[in-house]
Amino acid sequence: MPLFDQELTVLNVGLSAFADAIRLAGGKAVEIEWSPPAGGDRSAGLTLARLVNDPRVEAANRAAFAAYLAAEPVLEGIGRAAEVIPGLRGRTILHAGPPIAWQKMCGPMQGAVIGAILFEGWASRENAARALAERGEVLFSPCHHHGAVGPMAGVISPSMPVWIVRDPASGRRSFCNLNEGLGKVLRFGANGTEVIERLAWMATTLKTVLEATLGEAGPIALKPLMAQALHMGDEVHNRNTAATSLLLRRLLPPMLRSRASRDDIAAAIAFIAGNDHFFLNLSMAACKAMLDAARDVAGSSMVVAMARNGVEFGIQLSGTGDCWFMTASPVVDGLYFPGYSIADAAPDLGDSAITETAGLGGFAMAAAPAIVKFVGGTPDDAIANTRAMGHVTLGSNGGFTLPAMNFAGTPAGIDARRVLDSGLLPVINTGIAHRQAGIGQIGAGITHAPLACFTQAVTALAATLPDE
Amino acid sequence: MPLFDQELTVLNVGLSAFADAIRLAGGKAVEIEWSPPAGGDRSAGLTLARLVNDPRVEAANRAAFAAYLAAEPVLEGIGRAAEVIPGLRGRTILHAGPPIAWQKMCGPMQGAVIGAILFEGWASRENAARALAERGEVLFSPCHHHGAVGPMAGVISPSMPVWIVRDPASGRRSFCNLNEGLGKVLRFGANGTEVIERLAWMATTLKTVLEATLGEAGPIALKPLMAQALHMGDEVHNRNTAATSLLLRRLLPPMLRSRASRDDIAAAIAFIAGNDHFFLNLSMAACKAMLDAARDVAGSSMVVAMARNGVEFGIQLSGTGDCWFMTASPVVDGLYFPGYSIADAAPDLGDSAITETAGLGGFAMAAAPAIVKFVGGTPDDAIANTRAMGHVTLGSNGGFTLPAMNFAGTPAGIDARRVLDSGLLPVINTGIAHRQAGIGQIGAGITHAPLACFTQAVTALAATLPDE
Repeated sequence: MPLFDQELTVLNVGLSAFADAIRLAGGKAVEIEWSPPAGGDRSAGLTLARLVNDPRVEAANRAAFAAYLAAEPVLEGIGRAAEVIPGLRGRTILHAGPPIAWQKMCGPMQGAVIGAILFEGWASRENAARALAERGEVLFSPCHHHGAVGPMAGVISPSMPVWIVRDPASGRRSFCNLNEGLGKVLRFGANGTEVIERLAWMATTLKTVLEATLGEAGPIALKPLMAQALHMGDEVHNRNTAATSLLLRRLLPPMLRSRASRDDIAAAIAFIAGNDHFFLNLSMAACKAMLDAARDVAGSSMVVAMARNGVEFGIQLSGTGDCWFMTASPVVDGLYFPGYSIADAAPDLGDSAITETAGLGGFAMAAAPAIVKFVGGTPDDAIANTRAMGHVTLGSNGGFTLPAMNFAGTPAGIDARRVLDSGLLPVINTGIAHRQAGIGQIGAGITHAPLACFTQAVTALAATLPDE
Repeated sequence: MPLFDQELTVLNVGLSAFADAIRLAGGKAVEIEWSPPAGGDRSAGLTLARLVNDPRVEAANRAAFAAYLAAEPVLEGIGRAAEVIPGLRGRTILHAGPPIAWQKMCGPMQGAVIGAILFEGWASRENAARALAERGEVLFSPCHHHGAVGPMAGVISPSMPVWIVRDPASGRRSFCNLNEGLGKVLRFGANGTEVIERLAWMATTLKTVLEATLGEAGPIALKPLMAQALHMGDEVHNRNTAATSLLLRRLLPPMLRSRASRDDIAAAIAFIAGNDHFFLNLSMAACKAMLDAARDVAGSSMVVAMARNGVEFGIQLSGTGDCWFMTASPVVDGLYFPGYSIADAAPDLGDSAITETAGLGGFAMAAAPAIVKFVGGTPDDAIANTRAMGHVTLGSNGGFTLPAMNFAGTPAGIDARRVLDSGLLPVINTGIAHRQAGIGQIGAGITHAPLACFTQAVTALAATLPDE
């Protein structure tokens, strides 16, 4: 056996026990991380094999990805939700993630809904608000069904102000509510007096100032601003310090030229300057616009939404219309604030994974090494996350470059086939809410989109593409 | 010769020809970059050998470095130069770098001096201003001799507004003029009507607004702001986008609460928001404060100033008082704006290398990968520059951490002995001025402090430390 007389180069795939035996015998073995396609699900694996290299899917993905790249979302204005969001009528409340009934909602989402009912004045006390929801006198609908997105609970009610973002290429509009800051805030399920009063101030003073400012400023292109923030340590999901600062710098001169009063301007500026996350909701609306541009391309396996309602994690593909592919939302094993642990956490929540779907957030972590102080890990992990996502995406976005990776574009356009094939799950930077309403954020961390969503999605896509 | 029967590991020091011969014969050789201490200057090398490991120098450097680390510069206010800078009296004009006479000044510095004379009203036309300087009716003095610093020409005349930075630990004050923006500006030697009018506006409206703002805000700690900017892609020398944005966010609420008029505030904000370099001059004043804290420790080889007057490059050591060690200022081989080349460049100019002296700028390039688009090279080069500076510095500054280097502190406290020993020259990110007055910036790039300054400095320091 001359093979065993020389030094062996052993690559081990699968069970570690084989490599262990070699090591115990004094040899060296490299373990290759590998898992069978579709996590070993034979039926899904066969379906996947049929779609891999299918020229119909390849062509559809090229079209969808090109549409995503071509979108140039601009901040057009701010408006009252009921007046600008299509289909938001009467006692309707929008929420994050796929559809969900009141009874099934997680604590923070129920808390946010109650807060929205109080804010709207449909009830004047918490119990009455809860009863209203339980009696079915409030309609619930996902933000995503209305061209909108919202972070965490993602609750948008008719009287709230929303950002209006337009993509001139498609003519479509996208919407997002305004960021309230940290601490006790509606999106984490808080609904006390300070929360409702802040929402009222945002719907009046802040909206008035921003309306006057944007009227004076004209449309503001969002992609260049986001691209600059990526060069300044943001990934525009969980870190928006630079983007918020740049936005404020952009808004200030028109704000001071506008007809808004000095006191209102001072209050608006203090509010925005005091909240590093203020830009997040604009980032989300911009990402929504880029991905809506890629929707409804028959045969495309490109993911156009990933969203969580705090109970279920859902994704949508360009080639399967408005269908959601859902499974239980994971609980995030992240960095918890002092006094809290994973036992206190609500399952993953919010539409903010729209940023990862657009190639930002966790996909652009290489741009934001400092974020590891917030979500855990090391700067090398941040770069590794971005690099890994290159294996499950259709291309890179040259509009969003990463200095730490020699100005490579951020990986973008998740291909559900590649996720299912490789088992490399889309990485998401996320905040963590307490599972009870009203307590707020208790941590942040990195989570992954569950494989089951992709299994279902690829199976459903295959059903639209009969064998020729 | 059994040695040559096995595979050789060859390290080659010195002439490449030896390594080439081995490679031609089919072997492998690694070339080690090495140069003899003191660049081969036997006398300086012997002097250096005497100071290496000298316990007096080691103890002095520990004290100087600790004083540098302990400084906590705060922005205290803004004032008229003649009223706040010690020794700036009558027709005196401060300038960048070591002392220099009018006749020897480079084009941009003469241009800036003429502009300052016009701004002060000591003459009303360029020719008259030039004649005044030629007749010796204006006194010239380096900024550094007055606790001040200034970028490029570094011209500060009595009526200009200056930042006042104080270090509570030492009680000392440092000063810097205010950044004018890019294009035709005094610091690059321009002195036309628009330049003088802008200076007049800065001395009145901008000063009034900032005075009112800082009165309302109270002292602003500068190191935390700079540290945050390092996490946002700035190195606070040639890239100040984040720091300027963060400063503006910090100043806005007090500015709007202040007694300044709305029109003046609007104009001040438009000016600051329109200039990514606005923070540079504050960064310089803060660095000056940190390094002045380390001055005058007998026996210390720590560099406390590196500055250029456009003709000569000078350094000062903690252990040698106010002596300058000078040699010809190099011309920077950087990235030139279209239409310009190295033939058009003035030699290296300005006090802004105070940032590198304090462990920022080129020393903190790892924080600012995007700066390579401005000064040349790749993000890997940026990290390599920071890493190299670790070989010539006394320690690292834990107050200024670098995400891309796993949050290591920036290398700081240049030890003139180590520079002379290793030949590794301090790296400086710098702007490049046209050699003629009035044209302005024509590029940017990376330059190095010349070895000759360190040879002289170490020799002079040795003279203060007799053999025991």
